[in-house]
Amino acid sequence: KNDLVFKEARIGVTYGLAWTETGGTMLPVETSSFEGQGELIITGNLGDVMKESARIALSYLRSAQNRYNYLVDNIGKTDFHIHVPEGAIPKDGPSAGITLASSLLSTICGIAPKPGIAMTGELTLTGRILPIGGLKEKLLAAIRNGMEKVLLPSDNRDDWEELDKDVREALKVEFVENADEAFGLLFDEKIHKGNGKKKSRDKRIKIREQ
Amino acid sequence: KNDLVFKEARIGVTYGLAWTETGGTMLPVETSSFEGQGELIITGNLGDVMKESARIALSYLRSAQNRYNYLVDNIGKTDFHIHVPEGAIPKDGPSAGITLASSLLSTICGIAPKPGIAMTGELTLTGRILPIGGLKEKLLAAIRNGMEKVLLPSDNRDDWEELDKDVREALKVEFVENADEAFGLLFDEKIHKGNGKKKSRDKRIKIREQ
Amino acid sequence: KNDLVFKEARIGVTYGLAWTETGGTMLPVETSSFEGQGELIITGNLGDVMKESARIALSYLRSAQNRYNYLVDNIGKTDFHIHVPEGAIPKDGPSAGITLASSLLSTICGIAPKPGIAMTGELTLTGRILPIGGLKEKLLAAIRNGMEKVLLPSDNRDDWEELDKDVREALKVEFVENADEAFGLLFDEKIHKGNGKKKSRDKRIKIREQ
Amino acid sequence: KNDLVFKEARIGVTYGLAWTETGGTMLPVETSSFEGQGELIITGNLGDVMKESARIALSYLRSAQNRYNYLVDNIGKTDFHIHVPEGAIPKDGPSAGITLASSLLSTICGIAPKPGIAMTGELTLTGRILPIGGLKEKLLAAIRNGMEKVLLPSDNRDDWEELDKDVREALKVEFVENADEAFGLLFDEKIHKGNGKKKSRDKRIKIREQ
Amino acid sequence: KNDLVFKEARIGVTYGLAWTETGGTMLPVETSSFEGQGELIITGNLGDVMKESARIALSYLRSAQNRYNYLVDNIGKTDFHIHVPEGAIPKDGPSAGITLASSLLSTICGIAPKPGIAMTGELTLTGRILPIGGLKEKLLAAIRNGMEKVLLPSDNRDDWEELDKDVREALKVEFVENADEAFGLLFDEKIHKGNGKKKSRDKRIKIREQ
Amino acid sequence: KNDLVFKEARIGVTYGLAWTETGGTMLPVETSSFEGQGELIITGNLGDVMKESARIALSYLRSAQNRYNYLVDNIGKTDFHIHVPEGAIPKDGPSAGITLASSLLSTICGIAPKPGIAMTGELTLTGRILPIGGLKEKLLAAIRNGMEKVLLPSDNRDDWEELDKDVREALKVEFVENADEAFGLLFDEKIHKGNGKKKSRDKRIKIREQ
Ligand SMILES: [Ca+2]
Ligand SMILES: [Ca+2]
Ligand SMILES: [Ca+2]
Ligand SMILES: [Ca+2]
Ligand SMILES: [Ca+2]
Ligand SMILES: [Ca+2]
Ligand SMILES: [Ca+2]
Ligand SMILES: [Ca+2]
Ligand SMILES: [Ca+2]
Ligand SMILES: [Ca+2]
Ligand SMILES: [Ca+2]
Ligand SMILES: [Ca+2]
Repeated sequence: KNDLVFKEARIGVTYGLAWTETGGTMLPVETSSFEGQGELIITGNLGDVMKESARIALSYLRSAQNRYNYLVDNIGKTDFHIHVPEGAIPKDGPSAGITLASSLLSTICGIAPKPGIAMTGELTLTGRILPIGGLKEKLLAAIRNGMEKVLLPSDNRDDWEELDKDVREALKVEFVENADEAFGLLFDEKIHKGNGKKKSRDKRIKIREQ
Repeated sequence: KNDLVFKEARIGVTYGLAWTETGGTMLPVETSSFEGQGELIITGNLGDVMKESARIALSYLRSAQNRYNYLVDNIGKTDFHIHVPEGAIPKDGPSAGITLASSLLSTICGIAPKPGIAMTGELTLTGRILPIGGLKEKLLAAIRNGMEKVLLPSDNRDDWEELDKDVREALKVEFVENADEAFGLLFDEKIHKGNGKKKSRDKRIKIREQ
Repeated sequence: KNDLVFKEARIGVTYGLAWTETGGTMLPVETSSFEGQGELIITGNLGDVMKESARIALSYLRSAQNRYNYLVDNIGKTDFHIHVPEGAIPKDGPSAGITLASSLLSTICGIAPKPGIAMTGELTLTGRILPIGGLKEKLLAAIRNGMEKVLLPSDNRDDWEELDKDVREALKVEFVENADEAFGLLFDEKIHKGNGKKKSRDKRIKIREQ
Repeated sequence: KNDLVFKEARIGVTYGLAWTETGGTMLPVETSSFEGQGELIITGNLGDVMKESARIALSYLRSAQNRYNYLVDNIGKTDFHIHVPEGAIPKDGPSAGITLASSLLSTICGIAPKPGIAMTGELTLTGRILPIGGLKEKLLAAIRNGMEKVLLPSDNRDDWEELDKDVREALKVEFVENADEAFGLLFDEKIHKGNGKKKSRDKRIKIREQ
Repeated sequence: KNDLVFKEARIGVTYGLAWTETGGTMLPVETSSFEGQGELIITGNLGDVMKESARIALSYLRSAQNRYNYLVDNIGKTDFHIHVPEGAIPKDGPSAGITLASSLLSTICGIAPKPGIAMTGELTLTGRILPIGGLKEKLLAAIRNGMEKVLLPSDNRDDWEELDKDVREALKVEFVENADEAFGLLFDEKIHKGNGKKKSRDKRIKIREQ
Repeated sequence: KNDLVFKEARIGVTYGLAWTETGGTMLPVETSSFEGQGELIITGNLGDVMKESARIALSYLRSAQNRYNYLVDNIGKTDFHIHVPEGAIPKDGPSAGITLASSLLSTICGIAPKPGIAMTGELTLTGRILPIGGLKEKLLAAIRNGMEKVLLPSDNRDDWEELDKDVREALKVEFVENADEAFGLLFDEKIHKGNGKKKSRDKRIKIREQ
């Protein structure tokens, strides 16, 4: 089984993790941009929920543009194309949200993500990251592909603690509550406006659950 | 079961209540906005009736813009994105109308709702709030999530009076006949134009029923 | 059973009458408008025939704009939203035509209809009103909701004469052949251009039938 | 059975003839127009073939605008709405082509058709009129509704000659080969550019058949 | 059986040949044009493959506009309407490609095709003409309708040579490899830019087959 | 069986290889362009995955426009039409990606590909070429059609090495990892900006697999 992983970091390419009936797999996401009319092109044989995830990712970044160092002058006049290879394989579900947003942000800022990092998590429109399923299979796929670190939703911490020790120790894991935390781990500080004076607006988000 | 509730009030986030086959649940609604062409993006795996509710909410606010302190200069050139997590769960029905409108109004005015308030009610285009079903299950979900107050349609008052006393006393309830009453309870007075000189146009609405 | 009727007259709200399998019901129609691109938004879970009725109503009023006192400067740059609550109940059929047109005209002119009037009738593009079915059930719904007057298609006069006397005497009925006659009964004279110098163009319409 | 026929001639209203399983019926067509973006709105519960007939009618008139006295300044910036009542009855087929074109032309020129004339015939994009089916039932409907004259496709002449004498003598019939011939019989000479100097371009059309 | 053939040549009308379950038939194609936004309207109850053929025909002519004497100033601001009567009969398949392109070219240049010529052949985007099926039935239809000449794809030459002698001698046949060859036979030399100085760019196309 | 292959190189025509149930076949791709609004027209009876491949190809070239000598001034105001004959045959799958991109690039630059070269490979949005299936059948089709060279995905090298020697020696094969490598083999150096100073940005792409 060939998983699609580039050897080197590239602008616009981030690595998600998908659950399939035959186990976990890497889910690379590619984004490109060009002058246009603000159109969002989505390819890769994606189902409706995953297409919605891509729209949520773009809207989140459009409403957060005062926080990051966007290269793109006029995001409303830029076309974005998000592609999730391989084209023949149907894909769906919300858990690629943070991967889609990271791929978009990398392209918008012209900054490559740090190499060796995979991630999974549903993204909401306010940047919150919701828990995902298939944690064990996803981590095994990341280990098999030589990933060094995986970003997981904070709300999956309990699931992670129940995993076998050898899985937990094979890979560095970071739990994130929101997109800004994930971006901070995935990119260096140039991605934030004001170079390193990271704003903490998302810090206000605390989840209260029963 | 994890319900999605933020610990602190946030601009654009309001809390509805949904009935499901396994009981009531919190139904948070998130709205963001950005310069555009007046497009309304709706995500969250919503059925046609709920998508119509979102359009009704926006049209109500567009026709009521002389009443509230809109931050948005040109609402017709603003794109709004309404998202109702979680993306994998199908949702439908009209009873999130007032929640959708409150989320939109919060974003349009840049004013966060008061914390700890949930709500449910179908919204009509003239701002009237129509009764909803599943009252008991919805109230139990609000109680379970630590809500302090719930806004209910006036036409559900009879249903509420038939509930067990312990449910009725566990939570402060306000009955509202129209959107303006709900907004008055959910936001502080800055949301109205003329700061506190609340117009009573909606007061004219009285319902006559058999 | 709750029928939706406002106690007071409101701009943009008119009252139709619908036939359902469980009897007649009030069918309120709400219209709002705002600056836009001439879009017609239609909500309320309507079937294709009823959506066509809404388009016919708007086109009739667009082509008749030299006859009425329109507040709207540029009807081609105005968006209209027509909503027929309740959102969860599917509705269809052509017989709400005159109700939809009256709701639109009220909004376009900024003039509320006289209170206590319900109506039913299919509208054609030239303003003719065609007969409807379910007359008895519709009249009973109007009586039950305290309506004082009902506007009916002239071509339903025979159907009306065959009803029981107590139904016929419980409610004032006016038979109308075209939209202009209906508007004359529903609104005061300010609605016509030239204030009371009502043009009789529609008077030319006489129906010849076998 | 009520057929829809106006007593007096009206701008934009022409009378087709339809075949149904229960016999022939009048098929009135109504057109209105207003400033717009060249949109063609088609209502009346029409099937795809009949919608195509409406587009063919408009395209024929757009390409023939140097032949007729159009009131409309810029036909490409005019919206047309064609409605075929009654809205609840599905209709389809190509044989209303000439009726649709006549209704449009009447509206575009602001000239009413002569009263008492019905017509049937498929229209092609170059103005040719093709034969129709259900001739006998259509003629009976025209007779029953007091029509004085019916325009028929030349290629239906044989079908007509095989009808009973009493049907043939109850109604004046004119056979037409193309739209221009039909328009010449339906409207007075003001409809042509140059007032009465009718151009004979369509005269060139002769049909050769086996 | 009536086939639709005009006695005289007309601008925008060309004659294809179709195979049906009951034998071959003439397939006239009509095109009209008018100022617009570059829209292509396609009617005649056509299936998706035949609609694609119409788009291919227009794109071929748009990219070949430096070769022909176009009357149309701005082809990108011209609307074209292609109609294939009769409207009630479904049609599909790629073999009308050259007929569609010839009809469009006739309209774009304002030059009528020579009379008595029918044609069949799939068109590709570079102007190549691909072979078709149902050759014998198509030729019989052309003979029956008094056609004098038929343009056939070069790759159908073998099929033609296997036909009975009486069919082969009843009709003049020309084999064409590409659209430019077909246009040269169908139109006089005024259709080419530089009046008769026909460019031979398409001559480069030679097909290599196994 | 006739495969569609031109004898001479033509601008905008490239040769893919398709697997079908009856063996491999040539899959020529044709592209034309004209002034427009940036529309991408796709014909040839293609399934959704293959349509997505065409969009990916165009987006890749739009985002890579600083690397190639584009004749097209404003790619965002150019319409492209990609056609894959024959129109009656349904086609699908991602493996024509590099063929589609090569056809587009040839048209955009106005440079014909070198003759006798076929290719196959899925293209991702960053230009990576992914492996394909049906290798043996595709190579046999290329041999049968007299191709001299075939471009294959690097990740199909193992599959190729397992083929019979006579197949491997009948045809020159080049393995490519990305689109830029394929373009370098298919076009001469004029296609690159700076004439022969080929940039090696894509060289950074190395694939790491398990
Ligand atoms: Ca794979
Ligand atoms: Ca938790
Ligand atoms: Ca949950
Ligand atoms: Ca009540
Ligand atoms: Ca009710
Ligand atoms: Ca009557
Ligand atoms: Ca009737
Ligand atoms: Ca005949
Ligand atoms: Ca026929
Ligand atoms: Ca051959
Ligand atoms: Ca073939
Ligand atoms: Ca490999």
